[in-house]
Amino acid sequence: MQGFLTSPPDSNQRFPFARLCVLQSIWQFSTELPPPLLQAATWSGYPQDVLKVAQDLEMASINVIRGLAMDAVQKANSGHPGMPMGCAPMAYALWMHHLKFNPKNPRWFNRDRFVLSAGHGSMLLYALLHLTGFELSLDEIKNFRQLGSRTPGHPENTHTPGVEMATGPLGQGFASAVGMAIAEKHLAARYNRPNHSIIDHFTTLICSDGDLMEGVAREAASLAGHLKLGKLIALYDDNQITIDGSTDLAFSDDTEALFSALGWHVQKIDGMNVEAVDRALVEARLNQDRPSLIVARTVIGYGSPNKAGSSKSHGAALGPDEVRLSKAALGLPENEEFYLPEDVLAHFRSCIQRGQKQESEWSAAWDRYAEDFPDLAEELGRMIRGDLPAGWADALPTFGEALATRVASNRTVQVLASALPELIGGNADLAESVGTEIKGGGHFQAATPEGRNLCFGVREHAMAAALNGMNLHGGLRAFGGTFLVFSDYCRPSIRLAALMQCPSIFVFSHDSIGLGEDGPTHQPIEHLMSLRAIPNLAVLRPADGNETAACWAMALDRRDGPTALILTRQAVPSLTPENVFDHPARRGAYVLDSDPDPIVALIGTGSELQLCVEAAATLRAQGLPCRVVSMPSWLHFEAQDDEYQQEVLPLDLLCVSVEAGTTFGWSRYAQTSVGIDEFGASAPAPQLYEEFGITAANVVEAVHELISDFAQDDE
Amino acid sequence: MQGFLTSPPDSNQRFPFARLCVLQSIWQFSTELPPPLLQAATWSGYPQDVLKVAQDLEMASINVIRGLAMDAVQKANSGHPGMPMGCAPMAYALWMHHLKFNPKNPRWFNRDRFVLSAGHGSMLLYALLHLTGFELSLDEIKNFRQLGSRTPGHPENTHTPGVEMATGPLGQGFASAVGMAIAEKHLAARYNRPNHSIIDHFTTLICSDGDLMEGVAREAASLAGHLKLGKLIALYDDNQITIDGSTDLAFSDDTEALFSALGWHVQKIDGMNVEAVDRALVEARLNQDRPSLIVARTVIGYGSPNKAGSSKSHGAALGPDEVRLSKAALGLPENEEFYLPEDVLAHFRSCIQRGQKQESEWSAAWDRYAEDFPDLAEELGRMIRGDLPAGWADALPTFGEALATRVASNRTVQVLASALPELIGGNADLAESVGTEIKGGGHFQAATPEGRNLCFGVREHAMAAALNGMNLHGGLRAFGGTFLVFSDYCRPSIRLAALMQCPSIFVFSHDSIGLGEDGPTHQPIEHLMSLRAIPNLAVLRPADGNETAACWAMALDRRDGPTALILTRQAVPSLTPENVFDHPARRGAYVLDSDPDPIVALIGTGSELQLCVEAAATLRAQGLPCRVVSMPSWLHFEAQDDEYQQEVLPLDLLCVSVEAGTTFGWSRYAQTSVGIDEFGASAPAPQLYEEFGITAANVVEAVHELISDFAQDDE
Repeated sequence: MQGFLTSPPDSNQRFPFARLCVLQSIWQFSTELPPPLLQAATWSGYPQDVLKVAQDLEMASINVIRGLAMDAVQKANSGHPGMPMGCAPMAYALWMHHLKFNPKNPRWFNRDRFVLSAGHGSMLLYALLHLTGFELSLDEIKNFRQLGSRTPGHPENTHTPGVEMATGPLGQGFASAVGMAIAEKHLAARYNRPNHSIIDHFTTLICSDGDLMEGVAREAASLAGHLKLGKLIALYDDNQITIDGSTDLAFSDDTEALFSALGWHVQKIDGMNVEAVDRALVEARLNQDRPSLIVARTVIGYGSPNKAGSSKSHGAALGPDEVRLSKAALGLPENEEFYLPEDVLAHFRSCIQRGQKQESEWSAAWDRYAEDFPDLAEELGRMIRGDLPAGWADALPTFGEALATRVASNRTVQVLASALPELIGGNADLAESVGTEIKGGGHFQAATPEGRNLCFGVREHAMAAALNGMNLHGGLRAFGGTFLVFSDYCRPSIRLAALMQCPSIFVFSHDSIGLGEDGPTHQPIEHLMSLRAIPNLAVLRPADGNETAACWAMALDRRDGPTALILTRQAVPSLTPENVFDHPARRGAYVLDSDPDPIVALIGTGSELQLCVEAAATLRAQGLPCRVVSMPSWLHFEAQDDEYQQEVLPLDLLCVSVEAGTTFGWSRYAQTSVGIDEFGASAPAPQLYEEFGITAANVVEAVHELISDFAQDDE
Repeated sequence: MQGFLTSPPDSNQRFPFARLCVLQSIWQFSTELPPPLLQAATWSGYPQDVLKVAQDLEMASINVIRGLAMDAVQKANSGHPGMPMGCAPMAYALWMHHLKFNPKNPRWFNRDRFVLSAGHGSMLLYALLHLTGFELSLDEIKNFRQLGSRTPGHPENTHTPGVEMATGPLGQGFASAVGMAIAEKHLAARYNRPNHSIIDHFTTLICSDGDLMEGVAREAASLAGHLKLGKLIALYDDNQITIDGSTDLAFSDDTEALFSALGWHVQKIDGMNVEAVDRALVEARLNQDRPSLIVARTVIGYGSPNKAGSSKSHGAALGPDEVRLSKAALGLPENEEFYLPEDVLAHFRSCIQRGQKQESEWSAAWDRYAEDFPDLAEELGRMIRGDLPAGWADALPTFGEALATRVASNRTVQVLASALPELIGGNADLAESVGTEIKGGGHFQAATPEGRNLCFGVREHAMAAALNGMNLHGGLRAFGGTFLVFSDYCRPSIRLAALMQCPSIFVFSHDSIGLGEDGPTHQPIEHLMSLRAIPNLAVLRPADGNETAACWAMALDRRDGPTALILTRQAVPSLTPENVFDHPARRGAYVLDSDPDPIVALIGTGSELQLCVEAAATLRAQGLPCRVVSMPSWLHFEAQDDEYQQEVLPLDLLCVSVEAGTTFGWSRYAQTSVGIDEFGASAPAPQLYEEFGITAANVVEAVHELISDFAQDDE
């Protein structure tokens, strides 16, 4: 794209760029050229009367967006009208003149990614999706925020075609967009070839002051600047209003200077002026050496005579009277709801033809690519489809020796990285400790985007959000690691991954007091249970090397939700079978060994399975038949049929759980739990296990107490 | 302090300030003057030979710190020697020449607060505490990272006198220091009077690149700049090394420009040069219109011939050989461990006399203040002691009408704010929605630090961390609010509050699908349970207005841990007794009403208690005797004796829990749970309750199923 336009337009020269773009979509004359090129044509000029027609249609289109947003929010009597009303011009400019997308195939791989980080402005996105021809009917718009609609209060990728990700929790969209831009840059570096720019798209987002105040966005902005993600563009809706009133209440950043300090290309514009937005987007797209921030000054609730520019238009319906007044002020028919004139719809729907053309051109380019590079095309095509290659798990390692599961994980990663070119990993400044490095994979850096190891820095939250963006982008399976205790820093993004059915893999090592001397600030206690409580998150805590390899396979097999792999710092003995791909761990819990007619089951996870094995030996020596159950995954176990669950843990079997974390929650499976319900301490790990009573002797004692309690009950 | 020195020193003029400070502590001649004043004396000059003696002692002192750090880490064979070795000069300068503290009374209220945000450098702090005379023996240093020692791997305020807060999870110290500076500024504004600067201290922190990469620190830095916290000083240990290697791997911020953009006063210095550090600290202290960042270039592991300047010195013992080589390089006796010559110790211990003098001067000033302003002094004195005033809860409101518990909470806050001048509140841009505003309390802003309402902006994490800092500072009881779903953003700080036994009050409203149309991104599901899983966190979910008032009293009564108040968006009926101070809720769970010999107990929390009441009526009509138990707090209930617990929930009573959140964890109390184990949806709240089956009819059905299951089991 850059090849055609050798230099950016003189920014001092006003050119009727937006006007021309309107003409483009009216006349359909220029879909052969990507939008930025059109500006060249402006130098020849157009007659005033033609421009007037274009200008009127543009303004009508923008006001139709505003009208839909006002009406939908008013009908639901719930929602956020102000943001769509203020952002309609910039969103119009972006979608009509710059974004590359095909409404008839929202999953076209080479589309530009668009993220509405300010998710409360969902009606802006829904209006655009409906107007440009995505599978989102006007009835859905009329059902805004109603049960079963495709127009929930905040955008959800699982509900609405064309929505790239769920947004609403502020900062998440910004940070995941950074991940999408990483994915694009990485895939382009690895799969594009001279004259074959098969991966080539922008990632654009609209964010609010609220997004920019969030730490996760600040981390991500710093990361994006470091990585020089030149095809990432953030439009900042600078409306100077927050829920509580003026941003002056809490926000004094010099945002332009701030982003410049982070290495971004920064522009400040009038966001209500389509031409200014167009010009800024062209410049942002031409500046590919750095990510771009466009600070767009807007008026929240624009058009509302009594609520524009005020927090009153932010988070509630305007009210029927104010809606009428606003429509009058905007030149919309006052008493018509969901007003949508045909010329405006036709104008927006031109995106279909444009998009189909763009996609078909890309498909043709893909065919040429496949001809010249059949192996690459086959590999990339498979990755885009999200299929794993045949035999991908054949080489999974097995383990016979005692070793830390973080070490087993790292060895497994090496094997998987060979089999799966889509595997890309990263770490929050603990690469060696957590063991996430793909050896020989190189670092993903600004100058080496083909690298398969991301250095996220001490930015756990941005890492988790970026992993979501990379996995949502597609073509990659992205994982990232830190210590389990710092999963707290990632939690909003982990939850969102679960909600989005996004298969991010979070690798959390140093999973208990077993990390020893670093002490209670670093020792997870409640984390395993807190993660298990998140719906649709697989929490896998393997007991040894073989289970670790099996858990990696389980994580990669998951396509509809994230996985947290929970790993030890310390070595654990090898206890479980070596058939790692068909490992019984895949069913979540299984009988490791059992006497006939056991009286008690000892349920262990991770590093505590060995204590169950040890305790079982003692109990057997004492004449008590028992069973040892390894339970790496509650989620997988609970997905089994009742029969299997009963087979492993019959209802009439006494159960004791053993896990070096809170006992909270274990009452679901066990009458007694050996665990830790207080904060840890700083000391060598073996001493801590003694101190907190996580020992085989205590397991034996717990069993005797339990049996004696039940014996009493039976009396 | 500013009064004496009318202008900052000419920064181009080199002055032997550090030298003079050393002389000060040798000769004890100048303790009458606060350190910054001493520079005036430098203009008269000192003989070279005297300066040489001073310089030698200073260098010896710094190297003793390095030696202790190396030896302690080596003895533990675990820890982080590099940071103390690199930061020893700046820490020496700060502690010896600037900080105001009394080693014999670490809790002296007007001390300067010092936070080691880079908590992994704990040996730096322990060395300083031992050397300057705090209650931390050399044996404790030798027991670094051992069980039961006062020198855990990362600093813990509950273990070690002189440690202001627990640090280690990066960014937390930085953000909590911002809270301490807020507390100082607020108390000073409200209690100081002309010629009575009774509250007057700095808050200084040392942070690492890791701290600065964390979002929570970035949020806090933005907030501190906005609030112009001029007595906050951050020393940034710019060693250009992270765990994984050079900071170049992940960190390209122009930190100076960044903090300037946030409104900070920024200096860049050679952090290995005591005089440069002194000069910068003087300038930072004189610039009280903005917070100060001092970017101090240091060499990690300074002194180690083979590991200095490298990540190899960051997180592991240097090894015996390298320790010896390092000692030789630093001029320390090679084979002596924990070397501490008498002159160095005497030099450091001069801090005791200085500190005692500083405190006694302050005590005298306090007496004068108490004489002139007896009421203020009595009030402030009580606040500093942390006592609540007699009768503080007398005016707690009672409620008879249906209303949202967030509304009841807001009304309670108004009453408490009148009774408790120490109460200060804040919000993450949802003041009206959550109901945290103290009406008529004014906003805490740069120009109005007496305001009792903090606008934290959309910075939930920094809010939570700052609340911790404010509560740790003392003199205040600080609370802050956001939506429950965003407690995830605050989680690392909530956990740290629990670990630190810090009584922060987190107010979380919109506590379930009951928030309705905003949809699943905003609807908490797993949050109640995830919070309950944190040790020492009181999670209080009141069922109506009266329980809300009671829960506020419970929160304020807690002195040794944080509280999360969980509130509804929607109205709930009034169901519980009006004696709010002696409300049965104080015991965590209680029998709201019961038939004689009930067969089943319905346990409800918050907005679901009404469903239990409704279901109980149906069951009674069906002839089933039952009991309704309100359970606002697991923590408080579990603190009751067995007898009371048995009285409320006898072991032989069937129990059904009802809570509009995950059922995870309820198996501790209930055989069956009515709850939600998936993500919510966007729709009006009443429809969602139906959709997810959180209804009285379903509770009745659950009871029948449970009874039939047990009947079968008995067959």
